Order: sequence, then C-alpha cells, then structure tokens
Amino acid sequence: MKFSINATDDKSKARAGTLITDHGSITTPIFMPVGTAGSVKAVHQRELHDDIHAQIILGNTYHLFLRPGLEIIEKAGGIHKFNGWDKPILTDSGGYQVYSLAEKRKIKEEGVKFQSHIDGTRYDFSPERVMDIQRIIGADIMMAFDECTPYPCDFAYAKSSMELTHRWLDRCIARFDNTPAHYGYHQTLFPIVQGSTYSDLRKQSAEYIASKNRDGNAIGGLSVGEPVEDMYAMTELVCDILPEDKPRYLMGVGTPANILESIKLGVDMFDCVMPTRNARNGMLFTSEGIINIKNEKWKDDFSPIDPTTNHYVDNFYSKAYLRHLIISKEILGAQIASIHNLSFYLWLVNEAREHIKGGDFAPWANVMIKKVSQRL
Amino acid sequence: MKFSINATDDKSKARAGTLITDHGSITTPIFMPVGTAGSVKAVHQRELHDDIHAQIILGNTYHLFLRPGLEIIEKAGGIHKFNGWDKPILTDSGGYQVYSLAEKRKIKEEGVKFQSHIDGTRYDFSPERVMDIQRIIGADIMMAFDECTPYPCDFAYAKSSMELTHRWLDRCIARFDNTPAHYGYHQTLFPIVQGSTYSDLRKQSAEYIASKNRDGNAIGGLSVGEPVEDMYAMTELVCDILPEDKPRYLMGVGTPANILESIKLGVDMFDCVMPTRNARNGMLFTSEGIINIKNEKWKDDFSPIDPTTNHYVDNFYSKAYLRHLIISKEILGAQIASIHNLSFYLWLVNEAREHIKGGDFAPWANVMIKKVSQRL
Repeated sequence: MKFSINATDDKSKARAGTLITDHGSITTPIFMPVGTAGSVKAVHQRELHDDIHAQIILGNTYHLFLRPGLEIIEKAGGIHKFNGWDKPILTDSGGYQVYSLAEKRKIKEEGVKFQSHIDGTRYDFSPERVMDIQRIIGADIMMAFDECTPYPCDFAYAKSSMELTHRWLDRCIARFDNTPAHYGYHQTLFPIVQGSTYSDLRKQSAEYIASKNRDGNAIGGLSVGEPVEDMYAMTELVCDILPEDKPRYLMGVGTPANILESIKLGVDMFDCVMPTRNARNGMLFTSEGIINIKNEKWKDDFSPIDPTTNHYVDNFYSKAYLRHLIISKEILGAQIASIHNLSFYLWLVNEAREHIKGGDFAPWANVMIKKVSQRL
Repeated sequence: MKFSINATDDKSKARAGTLITDHGSITTPIFMPVGTAGSVKAVHQRELHDDIHAQIILGNTYHLFLRPGLEIIEKAGGIHKFNGWDKPILTDSGGYQVYSLAEKRKIKEEGVKFQSHIDGTRYDFSPERVMDIQRIIGADIMMAFDECTPYPCDFAYAKSSMELTHRWLDRCIARFDNTPAHYGYHQTLFPIVQGSTYSDLRKQSAEYIASKNRDGNAIGGLSVGEPVEDMYAMTELVCDILPEDKPRYLMGVGTPANILESIKLGVDMFDCVMPTRNARNGMLFTSEGIINIKNEKWKDDFSPIDPTTNHYVDNFYSKAYLRHLIISKEILGAQIASIHNLSFYLWLVNEAREHIKGGDFAPWANVMIKKVSQRL
C-alpha cells in the first residue's frame, strides 16, 4: 500500500493525499461507509459506486465472523467476491463489538472469551486469531486487535489497558508478518493508538504505535462519550506524533463538524455509523444544516432534500415525500435518507480535499462547520 | 383511455393488448406492483423503471388518505408529482383495507364508518367520497367502491352484498361522470364484479358490470381463501361475460401459476403484494421454481438468483449473499429480493405476451406453470 501527500493546508494541519491499494486508489480525506455485515445498510453496491461515490467501505469482523462465517466467505473467494464490492474494504478487529455487543465477555492476557449476541455460542478472539480471521475475510486494510476503553475510565485501567493493547499489537504484527495474503492481493495492518483521555498515555501510545512503522495508523477509543474538546485535544496530540507520511484514521468519528475539525488536525480517514443509522431515524445531514425530516414543518415542502449537493435522490425525491416515507416506516425512506447522508459525507470530504488543494481550506472549513452544525 | 387487442391465442382465451393512458401506454397481460403508501416497498422509482420495467403501479386509497393525506397530495399536484412515478397509477377504492385493517367498521347503505388503524380517528367512506378522494390522489385508473365479501360467505350475505356493491357502483359512476379530472390528465373508473363463489351471483354481477360499458372491468372478491379451482371457475365465468374489447383486471392475484392460468381465461391485468411481501421473508419466485433462500442448501451457492431472467440483481448478487442478508435481517436483502421478484413477475407477463403474439402461448404456459410452481 502506498500513501502520498498531494497538498497541505498552510493554516491548519490538513492534508490531501492518495492511498493506493490493490483494489484501487483512495483520495483523502475520505469517509468510509460502514457495511457491518458485508452490506452498507439499505444501500445497493451500485448506489455506493454511482451515487455515493464511496471509495472504500468498512466491514465488521465480529459480525462477519458470526454470519455468514469464515467458511462461506472463504468459499466465495473473500469478502469482495462475496458482496460484489470491488473497491477497497477495511475491517475492524472485532474488539469493539466484543465489548459492546457480545455477552459474558472475559478479557485476559491471551485474548477475549465471549458469547455470540445472536445465539450464545462461545468463542475466543486472540490477536493471532483476529489476524487469521481478517486474512480470510480478505480486507485490504486490517486492524490490530485492541481494547477500546469506555468513557469515563480511571487512569490505572486506561494505562494497563493501553499496555495490553501494545502487547497485543506486537502479537498481531508477528502473526500478520508471518502469514501470506489469502487471495493474491496485498493486505496491510493498521495499529491503533489508545490511552483514553489522558495526554501522557496518548503520547506514550502514539509513540509506541509510530515506532512500528506500519502503512497507516489509527486512533481508537475516542467518540465514546467524552467531551468533544477532549476528543479534539487527544486527536491533535496523537496526530502530531504519528508519522506525517502515513495515513491517519480516526475511528468511529463522527458528525460532519467533527470530521472537518479533525481534518484540520491532520486526520485522513474516517468511518461512522451515524450517516446511515441516523438516516433510518429521519435525521438528514445537508450542506445547509441538519434536518429532522419527521418535523411537521417539512410536510408540504416539495423542495429537494439538499439543493447544493445535486445527487440523484436529492433531486428526484422531495422533503415532503421523504417525510411521508419515514413517518410511514416505509423501507424506501431509509434507502433515500441513507443514500443522501452518505452522498453528503462523501461530498463533504471531497470538498475538503478540493479546498486543501485550492489553498483555502481553513476559512472554508470554518464557515462549513457552522453551517453543517445548525438545525434547520 | 384506449384499449386495443394486438393478438389472441387460439388454444385459450389469452389476449395481448395495449392500454393507452395519458401517462403512457401499458402492454397486456400486465402485472402491477403494489405501492401501498405511494412507494413499492424497498424499491426506488428508478429501479421500477430501469430494472423491473414496471409499466403501471398501484396505490392504496385507504393508506394514502390516512398518510400523507389529501391536502399534501393535492399540494404536490397529485400522486405522480408526489412520488415521482410518471407512468400510470391505479388506486383501489380503499374498501378492502377498510374491511381488513380499519377498526370498528360499520357498513350501511350510505357507506362505511371506520376508525384508522394508525390513530383511531373516525372517518366515513361513501361511494361519492371515494370518487372524490381518488380524483384528488390523481390515479389514472380509479376503482369503484365495493364490498369485498370474505370466504366463506353464505349465499344470502353474498347476494345482498353484491346488490349493495351494484347500488354503490351507480353512485360511483354518477359522481365520477359529474366531476372533472383534477390535474389535467384523463382519469377513468373501473367497476368491480363481486358475488363470492356463487356462479349465479357472479353471472348476474358480471352482466350488471358489463352493462355499464366502462373503459375496463375488474373482478374482485377472489383470492380471499377459496379453493383455487373456485377462483379459476369464477374468473372464467366472469371473463366470458365481460366485454372482450375492454381490459379485465383480476384483483389481488396471485402466484406466478395463478397469473398464467388466469391469462388463459382472458385476464389482462393483475396486482398482488405477494412478490414484495414474500421477498421480505426470503421467498423468491424464479423461472426455475420457488426458492426459500433461508434454507441451509443455499448457504454456499454462489450462482445467480435466476440464471434465465438476466436482471441486474440476479447477476450481481449470489444466492449465498442474498441468503446471508435475509438471515441477518439486512435491509438490502429485502431490496434485492423485492427487485428480483418484481422483475420476475414483469418478465413472466411479458413472456406470456410474446408467446400469445407468437402463437404458442398455451403449450408454453403449461410447461411454465409446472416449472414456476415447483419448490427448489
């Protein structure tokens, strides 16, 4: 995997880059739609390509491991063959889901024991096992197996958890470096910085992760309930330590404003369930601000969902029709809102990129952050 | 509205025709996807056009009246403007839903009083009101307000209900003929034959409906639980009485085999929720037979959903992937299965048409009926 910086902003730490994988190249900053079980919810693969202009999507290792399971994915020839998405795919390590979804989980030095939230079956995840699983899933970018601490988290726990994450990282790297890619194309491994909201832990973790010199680096354990100022402070601290010539991925973030603020701090890659999950509840992110389409005020507004972004669903369907569908719990409502929100997120990061290249990113971002944060 | 017969089959009563409306022409036999609340569930309008090749869709008057309501539809400029479907739309009269969904309904000579299943609000539907409502919705084809008898139904009730339906029809016609189309394009009214499974009532009703000389005629009150032989017997009896030069619409039917059998009897138009509702539960209708995609046997079958029909979703997605999505309750599973089933239904009626024109409909249909009925 190769990463190159195409432009940098001189009033912030924002950068525009290009990441090249065997499934195609990705321009950064980039937002990665979440395809938990091998499908971005309510969106066809064709729509991801043609309407949303997604360049890379996520899969969740925990979900894919449980269903359809490794045997099926392997028989299919990997996740890309299985779901028909032929551009890059990143998988998380499954750690976050084990902690948030699975039952009766037990974390030990060796790894994690847990029971499936679907049928209670017992499984073990270890750093080595998670590398093997992601090899079989066939992600272009694999994530290290870490522990994501909750917020708030006391210093002692945050420290020992970070140290465990570092020891697990070494085991991940050893396993990864000693196993071949499974389907002929190159796979890479990103380590994850932890350390909760403690600056000294974050510094220590970022330095440790940077020292591993992998193709890219991730920042985990943020956007888990901490004040947004803490998230930005930790992100800035970590970005300043992580190598400049490698992509930086801020996991699970966030709102459009969070993304623009974090781009300013030097983040290149983002993922979040917010645009799709909130879409299904009728929350729309637009270039003019946030819309709760269930509000009475939209009932006879026949204007496009977003007048600026000019996507298919925005112009074809009106706010009033989308409101009717969401209120009536029609599946098409979830479909339209999901395509809209993802299109908007991809439009936003691409605009950010163009403004970084154009030299006016910081003033543009400051105006946009206000616009995209307001409630319409 | 103009209907012309393009070809007839000499071994059955099947015909191929063309129905011309102000929103475009419809080739028959035709299947009409059901868009209850102004949306064919889980399907984009673009997919209805480009993938499914739908020529006309249904809307349910009862649902549209309750949500979004007439005020919104009228402000939008009618249902076509509201949902963006610019081809023909047929609306039912709302009668069937009042009997099956609404609460505390009371049928009197004047009309029906009922409470909304959504919030309990009380409403009155009368033949005149239902004409006014469908004028405002803006359907190209409006349906008469009838009473659809349940099955079984004793003779006395079936007879008095049929007579009520006939008196209501006269009131529908009087109202329809004395009110203008609402949005500049032509609307037409189809009366409905009732009479349960009693041949003499069906004969009497068909003769009454035929005497009204409307642009098209419908057969109601079938596919409500009666033996399939009774459904075919009643359909045949009624088709033989209804005018040959007008389209015949068999309401709420049915399986692919039901449709082919009924085309043989002279039916031109069909609608049914089966292809979409069953899709959401993982039942696929294919040119080779019926698939329950949840079955274990499909878990590692990476072949196309239907090798014959050659639609986008059939070739892009595999059976194994679709099975995974349906089992995981992913919305995309409902989307793929719905597009597939509707594409198959539209493919089937178009094949029927081609075989009627080609002169080999009856033998083709006999082979197909066996194929499409078998469980794979």
